Amino acid sequence: MCGTCNGDAAGAVPPAANSTTDNAAPSASTSNGVYPAQGKPASSPYQAVQDYISNVGRFKIIESTLREGEQFANAFFDIDTKIKIAKALDNFGVDYIELTSPVASQGSYDDCKAICQLGLKAKILTHVRCNMEDARKAVECGVDGVDLVIGTSSFLREYSHGKSMDMIKSTALEVIAYVKSKGIEVRFSSEDSFRSNLVDILHLYQACDKAGVDRVGVADTVGGATPRMVYDLIRTLRGCVGCDIETHFHDDTGCAVANAHSALEAGATHVDTSVLGIGERNGITPLSGALMARMVVTAPDYVKSKYNLKSLKSLETLVADAVQVNIPFNNPVTGFCAGIHAKAILANPSTYEIIDPHDFGMTRYVSINSRITGWNAVKARIEQLGLGSEFSDDQIKEVYGPPLFSAVFHCTGDIDTMRRTAKIKQMADIRPLAIDDTDSIIRSYHLHLQT
Amino acid sequence: MCGTCNGDAAGAVPPAANSTTDNAAPSASTSNGVYPAQGKPASSPYQAVQDYISNVGRFKIIESTLREGEQFANAFFDIDTKIKIAKALDNFGVDYIELTSPVASQGSYDDCKAICQLGLKAKILTHVRCNMEDARKAVECGVDGVDLVIGTSSFLREYSHGKSMDMIKSTALEVIAYVKSKGIEVRFSSEDSFRSNLVDILHLYQACDKAGVDRVGVADTVGGATPRMVYDLIRTLRGCVGCDIETHFHDDTGCAVANAHSALEAGATHVDTSVLGIGERNGITPLSGALMARMVVTAPDYVKSKYNLKSLKSLETLVADAVQVNIPFNNPVTGFCAGIHAKAILANPSTYEIIDPHDFGMTRYVSINSRITGWNAVKARIEQLGLGSEFSDDQIKEVYGPPLFSAVFHCTGDIDTMRRTAKIKQMADIRPLAIDDTDSIIRSYHLHLQT
Repeated sequence: MCGTCNGDAAGAVPPAANSTTDNAAPSASTSNGVYPAQGKPASSPYQAVQDYISNVGRFKIIESTLREGEQFANAFFDIDTKIKIAKALDNFGVDYIELTSPVASQGSYDDCKAICQLGLKAKILTHVRCNMEDARKAVECGVDGVDLVIGTSSFLREYSHGKSMDMIKSTALEVIAYVKSKGIEVRFSSEDSFRSNLVDILHLYQACDKAGVDRVGVADTVGGATPRMVYDLIRTLRGCVGCDIETHFHDDTGCAVANAHSALEAGATHVDTSVLGIGERNGITPLSGALMARMVVTAPDYVKSKYNLKSLKSLETLVADAVQVNIPFNNPVTGFCAGIHAKAILANPSTYEIIDPHDFGMTRYVSINSRITGWNAVKARIEQLGLGSEFSDDQIKEVYGPPLFSAVFHCTGDIDTMRRTAKIKQMADIRPLAIDDTDSIIRSYHLHLQT
Repeated sequence: MCGTCNGDAAGAVPPAANSTTDNAAPSASTSNGVYPAQGKPASSPYQAVQDYISNVGRFKIIESTLREGEQFANAFFDIDTKIKIAKALDNFGVDYIELTSPVASQGSYDDCKAICQLGLKAKILTHVRCNMEDARKAVECGVDGVDLVIGTSSFLREYSHGKSMDMIKSTALEVIAYVKSKGIEVRFSSEDSFRSNLVDILHLYQACDKAGVDRVGVADTVGGATPRMVYDLIRTLRGCVGCDIETHFHDDTGCAVANAHSALEAGATHVDTSVLGIGERNGITPLSGALMARMVVTAPDYVKSKYNLKSLKSLETLVADAVQVNIPFNNPVTGFCAGIHAKAILANPSTYEIIDPHDFGMTRYVSINSRITGWNAVKARIEQLGLGSEFSDDQIKEVYGPPLFSAVFHCTGDIDTMRRTAKIKQMADIRPLAIDDTDSIIRSYHLHLQT
């Protein structure tokens, strides 16, 4: 385990195998998988090591709001909405946009064609069942690539389509050859990969790899995998195929972001996402907030240079409105959230924050209305109100309130004065204070000082 | 790696080191860390292996809604609310309830005393700074245990309290000895453990372990750790101390649930949670939904026998109301969510679901209003409406709509009939359908059949 920090790992990063894009992805370089210290180097020996096989600093996003997301219970995207979302995703900088199968309905077919004609920078994919009819329809729409999917777990073999692995393989090879003959990208993915037979999967993927598939896909369709299971499977697969590896994680057990990160560490190259994670059941790895928060900590240089993080909040709002949901209060970065630890934060925010809200176009909000917030937060608010030069520290402590059982702070004044002035802390013990309440206590004390 | 499934691991599980409770926790036994197949054995060789050091099948919960949760920006709990929440947590079956430091304010002091006198089954802890004054106040309240915390990262040493590691250690040993002399539990935790110096932390924890501390605590205070970092640190620590290991994960990068799981795999014994994850910034590992969803998949027998899962939704609602937030739409298990995959789900829900909603007192909802839902979902709805015996499969397919480009389904009737009757699919292409819309199409077709 490497205990040194911030070495330049650029030379150690192998090129993505069989990469299908022209972009030379920047490496994590100076960050080297370590989460950033915002002004100070990290001192922990527990920095993530940039393993040779790791792609955490050069992953690609296959954005599936317009495919997986369209399967969300509350989703109905008309063509105007689809185009707005596709343009916003393109502006954010996703590598691929995946669309619902054109076989699903006439509307899906028309919309797929229309989006292909927008001339976006992102490549357009569509996600179809692995058969010739579906593949032909997909090609007909003018997509840049076709994502083939078939269920391979014993569950799906029995209940969904009943095909044997040999039939799956021969169909897959036929369809892959057809799509390749059209000069566009092709991916082959199993469904429910973590409950499929390992030997079957490796056998099938090796055959597809030899047939020249661009990516093989691993999907945790039921959302039950853990990061260690993911690392093991992807690491094994990385040793068996030379093509790119795409991953798709459902969030039924709350591990979709961590699983995506583990997959990249193990050598996967592509992550499927949707905005706010919308998709079947409770969805998949969320592009917004969660995955970007994770990756900007792991690989800040790559993420900040490649993706337009400042547009994330408006992208989320667009999609949330379209499917009529609220952005979860606890969404990383963009959710309604603030904290205390005010004393340390105000001296140096990086003490308790590893993500700089400004990177995402957000401002930092320090709540001062809780009874467990220290006087330092009150001081900061007084400064925000432009009254900083008119309060001494001791006076600020009087406004905030006396320490009840601790001798940490020294208070001036007699007991009566302390009782009279310690309004913020006393009031917060009785009822919630709005920001206005606190301000009015500060202003009233300021008036008292002047008279 | 073990490829066999469902072996009885009961005999292989070591007892929790220095366990401080009388409960003999059931092991994961027949589940063996494999996620459950609901009616069929799992066939994947990627089952999680129940390592000798793993505690995924006998973890304990330290529930911190009334401490960490009270630091949430929107939290203000009066004593009545605190008592309601404490009783609901106790009813759910958490092992410990952690309260805000009695030093924080007179209200916190009084509330701590009051909750200690409720006579709950759960043990009551309070979380205080590692100094004698705070510890005395804690003991005075009548708690079952004291959780000591001190910042140890270089960031916190510089900006928060400025103490050297030697001072931290000698204070820690003094306070631990004091709390132990009172016959109650004591935990010592660092803050920001993943950015602290490894040697410092191990040195400090070993000294605390020798002094007879019940638990040492590892905290990802800034929420930047990954599952592999967590596994490495906890695995190392497990080899250095004999006491229990408590873990605390913030969710800034969306990994708090996965990190808790990885920590248990590496030998941690206790997980800190809060309801809906409320806490500083966007909070910590959520008890509700996420962690329970993860653990019921990993260790179904243990989780279902120990925790009252059916009370989870009402517990969430209680806390969500108290802090005035909405339960996130994508919350595992309890969030608003439904999926398609209707064909497979209706044959056997376990094909696409690894969590049985009934375990949580929830009902399964299959949406049939999306254009990409198959005719099988329409069939299920027709059966729910009590009309199952009056529709043939071909008629149901007519109601649903003809396949546009696929020959999977055989439709009777000429093109005109198909156009006339395929209302659900056609309408869903034009505007979102409410459940009433679909029902009315079904009923109208049924009327047409009868006349």
